[in-house]
Amino acid sequence: MTEPDVPGLQRRLADFAAARQWQPYHTPKNLAAALSVEASELLEIFQWLTPEQAERVMEDPDTAHRVGDEVADVLAYLLQFCTVLGVDPLAALAAKIDRNELRFPVRGENDTHRHSSE
Amino acid sequence: MTEPDVPGLQRRLADFAAARQWQPYHTPKNLAAALSVEASELLEIFQWLTPEQAERVMEDPDTAHRVGDEVADVLAYLLQFCTVLGVDPLAALAAKIDRNELRFPVRGENDTHRHSSE
Amino acid sequence: MTEPDVPGLQRRLADFAAARQWQPYHTPKNLAAALSVEASELLEIFQWLTPEQAERVMEDPDTAHRVGDEVADVLAYLLQFCTVLGVDPLAALAAKIDRNELRFPVRGENDTHRHSSE
Amino acid sequence: MTEPDVPGLQRRLADFAAARQWQPYHTPKNLAAALSVEASELLEIFQWLTPEQAERVMEDPDTAHRVGDEVADVLAYLLQFCTVLGVDPLAALAAKIDRNELRFPVRGENDTHRHSSE
Repeated sequence: MTEPDVPGLQRRLADFAAARQWQPYHTPKNLAAALSVEASELLEIFQWLTPEQAERVMEDPDTAHRVGDEVADVLAYLLQFCTVLGVDPLAALAAKIDRNELRFPVRGENDTHRHSSE
Repeated sequence: MTEPDVPGLQRRLADFAAARQWQPYHTPKNLAAALSVEASELLEIFQWLTPEQAERVMEDPDTAHRVGDEVADVLAYLLQFCTVLGVDPLAALAAKIDRNELRFPVRGENDTHRHSSE
Repeated sequence: MTEPDVPGLQRRLADFAAARQWQPYHTPKNLAAALSVEASELLEIFQWLTPEQAERVMEDPDTAHRVGDEVADVLAYLLQFCTVLGVDPLAALAAKIDRNELRFPVRGENDTHRHSSE
Repeated sequence: MTEPDVPGLQRRLADFAAARQWQPYHTPKNLAAALSVEASELLEIFQWLTPEQAERVMEDPDTAHRVGDEVADVLAYLLQFCTVLGVDPLAALAAKIDRNELRFPVRGENDTHRHSSE
């Protein structure tokens, strides 16, 4: 059994949807909505937790399973979205990190850092 | 230059955050919230489009760039979330597809199919 | 029985949370996360529907009930968020409509209109 | 100048959209997506804040204005969604609180309480 990789998972997801004739549902707009819904289901696990409780979610086996399951759902819809629109998600992220290295240069130790979301 | 892969991108993202002392912000709860916010920014591109317009978003270079950029942001926060909590996203998705193959068996040609989100 | 109004619903929600000692959970950040999660649950009802199917969701009693239930959840967290931070939601919306009337003037019949999200 | 109320705001929003010929965009599915996007924009304000920083967002005038603006956007799309589908948001919430009072009875002082999201 080989390690799963992104192109192999994209093929498995495409075959899975095709075998069940789900492609008509998997429009770019629907997949973007589904991705957003699944990301919210992941957030839901954390919504009432203190930061300290949130750090320890993997200690409870049921919650750990739920976290892995929601991660899988988010990744599944992200990859299917990318397949449908012809976006290479790994190349897109590598290019973004390149841009962010220029945009947020590492400054000297005594600088005041300001966190940015991008 | 080698092809980017998920473990390599996770290392680059971790190094990027460490060099800018952003780790205190990158708690599991904050990263789950940021992932959800970025998924909504991807959806925002599609919110007013008809299904037909949504199929053609990559024909416009500016929109295509924006789509790639939001895909990168979603993947970046998903991978950072997984790094912080020790979740293997590719293994989680492979296991989920295995489970779904049992849960949604492919039926005969004449069956009525009902689409399910999971 | 009087008609419910926003200030009355805000009081009922505050009393409900206080009687169950839920206030420690109802921080601004948690309520913003919960609001976002509930808005996604409303979207989930529509994610695989065509625009035409989506127009008819209220014809099915179960779906109609689910829509009303998710609308209630979104409004509940929005009002609780506003109570905790001292925001008047109706005044905020009235002010926003005033601003948008200046920002998006109604143009002549033959102009080309471009829809904006704000 | 009278106080704004929900039915009056719904009329203003409907007139605003009609005058700009935006109704074709305001389908139930699109409005549900837009509501979810705006709720995420509200969450974005809080995503990197500690719980303590989040409690104090209204002390900074710019952030306070941004919070009010996002609250207005969430409420605007929620009300437009309700108008289009014929849902009474205040009645839906009042009915939900009624149901929750039965579902989560207030227990004696020495009971252990468990917070629920609904």
